[in-house]
Amino acid sequence: MEAQAQALAEAVSQAMYERDVAVRALGISVVEARPGRASASMRVRADMLNGHAICHGGLIFTLADTAFAYACNSYNKSTVAAAASIDFLRPARLGDALTAVATERVRSKRSGIYDVAVHNQHGEAVALFRGRSHELASAVLETVTP
Amino acid sequence: MEAQAQALAEAVSQAMYERDVAVRALGISVVEARPGRASASMRVRADMLNGHAICHGGLIFTLADTAFAYACNSYNKSTVAAAASIDFLRPARLGDALTAVATERVRSKRSGIYDVAVHNQHGEAVALFRGRSHELASAVLETVTP
Amino acid sequence: MEAQAQALAEAVSQAMYERDVAVRALGISVVEARPGRASASMRVRADMLNGHAICHGGLIFTLADTAFAYACNSYNKSTVAAAASIDFLRPARLGDALTAVATERVRSKRSGIYDVAVHNQHGEAVALFRGRSHELASAVLETVTP
Amino acid sequence: MEAQAQALAEAVSQAMYERDVAVRALGISVVEARPGRASASMRVRADMLNGHAICHGGLIFTLADTAFAYACNSYNKSTVAAAASIDFLRPARLGDALTAVATERVRSKRSGIYDVAVHNQHGEAVALFRGRSHELASAVLETVTP
Repeated sequence: MEAQAQALAEAVSQAMYERDVAVRALGISVVEARPGRASASMRVRADMLNGHAICHGGLIFTLADTAFAYACNSYNKSTVAAAASIDFLRPARLGDALTAVATERVRSKRSGIYDVAVHNQHGEAVALFRGRSHELASAVLETVTP
Repeated sequence: MEAQAQALAEAVSQAMYERDVAVRALGISVVEARPGRASASMRVRADMLNGHAICHGGLIFTLADTAFAYACNSYNKSTVAAAASIDFLRPARLGDALTAVATERVRSKRSGIYDVAVHNQHGEAVALFRGRSHELASAVLETVTP
Repeated sequence: MEAQAQALAEAVSQAMYERDVAVRALGISVVEARPGRASASMRVRADMLNGHAICHGGLIFTLADTAFAYACNSYNKSTVAAAASIDFLRPARLGDALTAVATERVRSKRSGIYDVAVHNQHGEAVALFRGRSHELASAVLETVTP
Repeated sequence: MEAQAQALAEAVSQAMYERDVAVRALGISVVEARPGRASASMRVRADMLNGHAICHGGLIFTLADTAFAYACNSYNKSTVAAAASIDFLRPARLGDALTAVATERVRSKRSGIYDVAVHNQHGEAVALFRGRSHELASAVLETVTP
């Protein structure tokens, strides 16, 4: 049962990642996909710096939002973000290796709450993100054998 | 007085934009910069689509966050985002022309609240964003004549 | 048409207020009810002060949430809060007369976004609130003639 | 060291509670106070019900905000809420016994992030709250021997 859920989470993650041009263009890797949980990592590139010479907050959000997306789609129900909030705790700089870990807090009928923590390579917290998911009627993998 | 504030907002915006590699890499234009207010636009490119074939929510956030950044830095005090929240109302698709308009709601000593609305080319609301700013001690343009 | 919508908003507001024990216990008045818009006011009483001798932030939230509730129920569809966020800008003190004005930003099928601003008797902003509504299947007034 | 921090947290909590008229008027108990952590409980009374005959969301927020306040003041630095967000997951009904547990996620110079989960007597999640704290210059207990 658990093994099946885990296999499904991995299959969904791989299929999503292949289609996920935005995430690949940003060099984001999805390093873990489990039922209700996912991790993603990103290195801060020169083309991610804003006018203050730190990583654009939008791209830190994008990393967190990606971990959130892979966590909430892990059951093979197409799921999108309805809302999200982020607290920025510390700037990220050129070359920093950021990791976002998304954890499911609650999941009910059609919606869920996921917490994402973003840390840098020193283990320092860079941002805390909370997302509210909304499940659509379709599946991510249409041809999955149940 | 107002003309001076407007000239300062424009000078800050230009200087920030020149350094703002992330925003230029995403093809974002800053189309208006006024004291406490800014607009930015972005066309949804193929490399912005996620695994559901719609614009990655993180990049819609990035557009809104950019308008917010230019609005809250317009007084030539270096200002960063402390926190932000976003509600996603409607997906954005390949080729959509998105515009984010940031408006100051309050600004006090070292912090402020800015609302950003993102619309598509049909005038439909795509996202609502609210950001909390935090002012640093430095200036954006160090050499401005007061 | 507009007159009908306004009459419905007022009828819903009155019916809700009669049943709304919590709001009456806090001395909150609903001073305006229009389609998608409502205002509520509250005087800060001695039994609303927290350990810092200022109005408990939860009660400022409650005032804002009340204006939100009357605004989003104004169409006679039972509607509850799915989520809300608040920024506290200035403390409220004993005797302060607070007013919360809720405005609809967007409303679609089953959800909406409402902004609420809370001001004191000097017109100073005390808090900004944003709520996400969720429409239930029932009506507030079951016996309304359409 | 830890024992001292724990004793301080308890002394602060007791002193705050004695002055905290709002919390006592709502029948809220502070059932645990530790450095960076606090729990509070509240029974839903008849005078807490709104027009839908469920507990007013503002009072669920108030309970969560109270746990947050006792957690972030536990170091004897006067600390207030700068902002908070809440997701409502399930209604609370007359007689429900609600418990809010606040946990510190990060704390730096003058601000911190605290997560609060509110559950009912069946262990079901009623709301998730996240608060951003702002430290003032004063102490809660002015006469503490360091």
